[in-house]
Amino acid sequence: MATLADIGLAAAINILSAFVFFVVFAVLRLQPFNDRVYFPKWYLKGLRTSPARGGPFARKFVNLDFRSYIKFLNWMPDALKMPEQELIEHAGLDSAVYLRIYLLGLKIFVPMALLAWTILVPVNYTNNTLELEARYNNVTSSDIDKLSISNIPQASNRFWAHIIMAYVFTFWTCYVLRKEYETVALMRLQFLASERRRADQFSVLVRNVPPDPDESVSELVEHFFLVNHPDHYLTHQVVYNANKLAELVKKKKKMQNWLDYHQLKYTRNNSKRPLTKTGFLGLCGNQVDALDHYTLEVEKLSKEIAAEREKVASDPKSIMPAAFVSFKTRWGAAVCAQTQQCRNPTLWLTDWAPEPRDVYWPNLAIPYVSLTIRRLIMAVAFFFLTFFFMIPIAFVQSLASLDGIEKVAPFLRPIIDIGFIKSFIQGFLPGIALKLFLIFLPTILMIMSRFEGFISLSSLERRSATRYYLFNFVNVFLGSIIAGSAFQQLNSFIHQSPSEIPKTIGMAIPQRATFFITYIMVDGWAGIAAEILMLKPLIIYHLKNFFLVKTEKDREEAMDPGSIGFNTGEPQIQFYFLLGLVYATVTPALLPFILVFFGLAYVVFRHQIINVYNQEYESAAAFWPDVHHRVIVALVVSQLLLFGLMATKQAANSTPFIIALPVLTIYFHMFCKGRFEPAFVRYPLQEAMMKDTLERAREPHVNLKSFLQNAYLHPVFKSADDDDEDDDDVDEKWDNESVLVPTKRSSRRNTPLPSRISTTSSPSLPEVHEDSQP
Amino acid sequence: MATLADIGLAAAINILSAFVFFVVFAVLRLQPFNDRVYFPKWYLKGLRTSPARGGPFARKFVNLDFRSYIKFLNWMPDALKMPEQELIEHAGLDSAVYLRIYLLGLKIFVPMALLAWTILVPVNYTNNTLELEARYNNVTSSDIDKLSISNIPQASNRFWAHIIMAYVFTFWTCYVLRKEYETVALMRLQFLASERRRADQFSVLVRNVPPDPDESVSELVEHFFLVNHPDHYLTHQVVYNANKLAELVKKKKKMQNWLDYHQLKYTRNNSKRPLTKTGFLGLCGNQVDALDHYTLEVEKLSKEIAAEREKVASDPKSIMPAAFVSFKTRWGAAVCAQTQQCRNPTLWLTDWAPEPRDVYWPNLAIPYVSLTIRRLIMAVAFFFLTFFFMIPIAFVQSLASLDGIEKVAPFLRPIIDIGFIKSFIQGFLPGIALKLFLIFLPTILMIMSRFEGFISLSSLERRSATRYYLFNFVNVFLGSIIAGSAFQQLNSFIHQSPSEIPKTIGMAIPQRATFFITYIMVDGWAGIAAEILMLKPLIIYHLKNFFLVKTEKDREEAMDPGSIGFNTGEPQIQFYFLLGLVYATVTPALLPFILVFFGLAYVVFRHQIINVYNQEYESAAAFWPDVHHRVIVALVVSQLLLFGLMATKQAANSTPFIIALPVLTIYFHMFCKGRFEPAFVRYPLQEAMMKDTLERAREPHVNLKSFLQNAYLHPVFKSADDDDEDDDDVDEKWDNESVLVPTKRSSRRNTPLPSRISTTSSPSLPEVHEDSQP
Repeated sequence: MATLADIGLAAAINILSAFVFFVVFAVLRLQPFNDRVYFPKWYLKGLRTSPARGGPFARKFVNLDFRSYIKFLNWMPDALKMPEQELIEHAGLDSAVYLRIYLLGLKIFVPMALLAWTILVPVNYTNNTLELEARYNNVTSSDIDKLSISNIPQASNRFWAHIIMAYVFTFWTCYVLRKEYETVALMRLQFLASERRRADQFSVLVRNVPPDPDESVSELVEHFFLVNHPDHYLTHQVVYNANKLAELVKKKKKMQNWLDYHQLKYTRNNSKRPLTKTGFLGLCGNQVDALDHYTLEVEKLSKEIAAEREKVASDPKSIMPAAFVSFKTRWGAAVCAQTQQCRNPTLWLTDWAPEPRDVYWPNLAIPYVSLTIRRLIMAVAFFFLTFFFMIPIAFVQSLASLDGIEKVAPFLRPIIDIGFIKSFIQGFLPGIALKLFLIFLPTILMIMSRFEGFISLSSLERRSATRYYLFNFVNVFLGSIIAGSAFQQLNSFIHQSPSEIPKTIGMAIPQRATFFITYIMVDGWAGIAAEILMLKPLIIYHLKNFFLVKTEKDREEAMDPGSIGFNTGEPQIQFYFLLGLVYATVTPALLPFILVFFGLAYVVFRHQIINVYNQEYESAAAFWPDVHHRVIVALVVSQLLLFGLMATKQAANSTPFIIALPVLTIYFHMFCKGRFEPAFVRYPLQEAMMKDTLERAREPHVNLKSFLQNAYLHPVFKSADDDDEDDDDVDEKWDNESVLVPTKRSSRRNTPLPSRISTTSSPSLPEVHEDSQP
Repeated sequence: MATLADIGLAAAINILSAFVFFVVFAVLRLQPFNDRVYFPKWYLKGLRTSPARGGPFARKFVNLDFRSYIKFLNWMPDALKMPEQELIEHAGLDSAVYLRIYLLGLKIFVPMALLAWTILVPVNYTNNTLELEARYNNVTSSDIDKLSISNIPQASNRFWAHIIMAYVFTFWTCYVLRKEYETVALMRLQFLASERRRADQFSVLVRNVPPDPDESVSELVEHFFLVNHPDHYLTHQVVYNANKLAELVKKKKKMQNWLDYHQLKYTRNNSKRPLTKTGFLGLCGNQVDALDHYTLEVEKLSKEIAAEREKVASDPKSIMPAAFVSFKTRWGAAVCAQTQQCRNPTLWLTDWAPEPRDVYWPNLAIPYVSLTIRRLIMAVAFFFLTFFFMIPIAFVQSLASLDGIEKVAPFLRPIIDIGFIKSFIQGFLPGIALKLFLIFLPTILMIMSRFEGFISLSSLERRSATRYYLFNFVNVFLGSIIAGSAFQQLNSFIHQSPSEIPKTIGMAIPQRATFFITYIMVDGWAGIAAEILMLKPLIIYHLKNFFLVKTEKDREEAMDPGSIGFNTGEPQIQFYFLLGLVYATVTPALLPFILVFFGLAYVVFRHQIINVYNQEYESAAAFWPDVHHRVIVALVVSQLLLFGLMATKQAANSTPFIIALPVLTIYFHMFCKGRFEPAFVRYPLQEAMMKDTLERAREPHVNLKSFLQNAYLHPVFKSADDDDEDDDDVDEKWDNESVLVPTKRSSRRNTPLPSRISTTSSPSLPEVHEDSQP
């Protein structure tokens, strides 16, 4: 049991390191040669160019204006200044709403912390249970525990205070959640309504086009939609399996980088031609002349790319049974995306097309039939990942406890007994061990999501975030609580009754408060402060800048602003929601630590979003239902655990009153789901019609077809002109491709009856003349 | 533990009673004066008229042709003769598919029974565990148990046979289920495609029309759909709150019946005027002249009805914020029903309109906002109903056991010890006690569903069926297994671990086989045979015929053919699926009893559907996903219980192989859900377009508007001309009501911008002229 002094030390260390990070950041960001690392967003927007070239040489790299160093925390108010509307325009709705998650944390926990400290802490503190226990049973407890529910005697009437507070906290959380959901839904709808014309508003992704012996995929798609959406269909773009091509382009780029590196090296040191080895990473294999070797490689790849490009364009096998279909109106697209097209529900599957830059192209080539199997495999794999990853964590944590170390390595006892080291081990090691384990996890989860076949980056990230949260919940939260107190419980845990489980966990919760406090300080204070340093991009930028950059354009490419990283960031925030809600009634002493996290993270991420991150896509806050859902889960978990804890405290006359809470919370969730979620998954026809009508009135003669024609071309074809000059004909081919192809159908075997209508060039069905106007 | 002799006796009793029912049925149905009770379907179809009037008087009432009595089981082959296609035309798809549930039972269990008897029974029988136990531990067991898994020694390798058979049974069940789902989905689609023009194909029910200060609901609906579905909107019909009116009409009908009854009485006995009392059921209160009293009442009600009708038609408050909106094409209706209309997902809610005769009118008047609360209340109420209903059943059952009776009433011991009575108590009482309890349940569940606010009869019945099944599962199945063996276990049960529960139940299952066998015989054999007698309709018909019938039309109304009763029938079948699947591996001796049920019920219900039942609505087999889902649930339950049973048998090396089964089964369910369920909940646009196009080609000048105008008028207005003559003007009013009303809107506060377009009479939006044809 860590004492207040231990926590004080850990806090001091973490505050100090956060402070150091901020100072270093303040120094680094003012240096002109780091400008592109700390302000890439502005460069990408074209609002900032490289630092003035005119000044003295040193000025270009080092900021010698000492006045600017004095106000080293100046960036904080700057970050807070930009109003939200401007932020949405500057960085997109996703980023703006992402910041609202931190605000949500503050909105929920500031009043909660105030209430808890004014009511619960006095109620807890004015007992002497722990003192008595310490005197008679020789049970030691820390000062933190004196502020917690542990200090209340068994079967005390004071538990009513905790139950009433649990109700108050639940209602407050739900109230804030509801208001926030409403605000975000409105923001999303306004954002969608105010957006300028975008390809995804008019487009639908069709998958699983059935094979047809008479017609190509492109013809089939055209005929199908001309028949079934005659008034709305405009054009379409088939999906090519260009994964191999994309890989070749990537490989060529890598070779080009090596070539640039060696050329630069040669320019700087003309005396000897650079050499390289052909083997792995240039470390083994035959030694050859680097310049010749890489020039050859690049040329070879260029040829391969040209051949592959030719093949993709001409080979019908490289056309996937999928297409992006565009409509004349948003209304038509909304209708098509939200209805079933074909009698067989696994054919002609339509869904909203993601924003073009949001499309994850490699997965479009996955045949739809394998998707369910992939999902099953990944569900099983994730189950094993979650439950077997637990063993090493628990092992390390049991080592990192004082007893564990003394048992494993008794010779260390004299060192451990030194007060400072003891505090260090207790305050730091468990958190770090956990953190190290978790560093590699997001990548694994992202690979799993990719394998599952999601077709947009945003859905990939959302899926990974869900899994990451589940993982955190099972391993970090439950794992720390149970394994920390007794790893042996784990096995018996599976065989416990459902009413026993909350008791076991609930009982262990107050004891683990100090552990989670140190965890918050390491992960949530120092970790967030380190984020602003951008250490990895900084190093990579300077390495690239030194070895590869020849032109201004290269320097632009060397910037790696990164993005929010929803798949790791959001589960992290959610973990703090979980901790906060669980400990709000149990150990209110934990709340201030969480408040510091939310406040700090809000400022840091607002700064990063304004100055650094370059969001890859815009999903218009499609992630909010997930955020909301997970806070609700945390709320229900906190209620169940409080119930379990109370049950062990023999507060029999007050405990049953907690049962109504989860029921009410779940009902609240269902209400919110019905009321607000549709704004995130559907597109109301009224909105579509309104936007269509407005646009038609404003710009009656816009050529929509040319606008939509190439919106959903694989980026490898789009960026083609950057690399090669000989692909104009390919582009042209793409342009011509969707003029009307007369049907080559010889039999009607595979077509529904009305298909013959589509053989005429214009789909003008005879109108039924109603004899009365409505 | 019941012996083979007990079961034999019970079987004999039940077979005998079934036989008696059939003989009585054979005699009754041949009597001409019962013709309308046993062949009402043919009368309703107009294919059969009252028996010939020409013959001798006796002939009209009694069939004296003795040859027709000899072949008294003749109706069975007759019932099986009609081919399925004809059956669909004769009785609708719902009935035909309902019969397929019985066939499904036969398809699943016939091969299963054969396999189980050739493999499992020998494996079980060739052990002597029970003999040894009987010898050494003085544990008695019946002969049935010798054929069951109980006869296999602990930790025997023979359990492999059961596990392999569990796999075989699962795969067979899934195979049959899949094939059946496919067939039914196809039948549904073909039925929908081949149907002639029907109002519900073109109509959508809109609920929660927002209030508007400037426009009436009717105007608002018209403008909204003219704006948002300009090319497809045809007409609409607002929903009136005519519940009070319908009640008055019903009351008048009842009074009219009393009047008729007294008039008839007076005609038969002219000597004295009939008297009645004004109080409850004519039993108390002042004595008055019956004829005068009821004539007065009927006149008074007629006036009230006329006034109420006037009020409903003129008072804007009696118009609900809901409407049936009809479209020019099926495509337009399909689009509108399956998309969200408005930014606020709780306004302008659209869904398929049920078939006009399927609409449950009283619920259309429920404001939408109260629906979620009603659902929550009913969920809680159902929970309590399910878990508190359990106590009386368990109490009666424990009484009905021999020990129970001897304990409560020791003086009965000499009577009970008589062999015959002992068998009777064991074979009959538990089943009857249960059955009595369950008789009143469907009505309660139906009332609950109505309270929840479903708007179609079919959904009401489906919801009730789901609840009834859950109730049966918890109370009859689990209740009989656990309460029967030890009612005291129930309380401790809640506190058991999830891995203990299957063990507890699994262990008790083989012991309860004989109970369920008697249950099947009482409920499934004799009960089904009694169904064909139509006892209740027979009595009611003859009572009405005697007291009320004056004209041929009255006689027509006195017929009560009833309908299938999906809400009670389907859960009953499902219960047999559950029993069959659970006992297939444990006590195969139970399977033949279930086979007899399925076979007998199939024949009986086929006969009833052909000759008797008059289905109130046609939902085109919309219930099949529920049926499929519940069989899957039964399958998973059977697997879990087998797992639990095995775990208690110490078959440690073979038990883990069962775990894969539920996972595979659930995956199979998800696959089926994705593949087949959309056919039951959505309407593919391709189908809609095809049918539209075909119809347009065949009948280009049909006046759809006049066809749809009054399709969704409340039946109380439609049948108005039967009762009154003075309502022609009201009807006319209804006809005129939906001609175009120029907007009375003075402000634009509540309308979206494009609404002004709708002020012109024809919604001709300017077309955008694309410069290239797709």
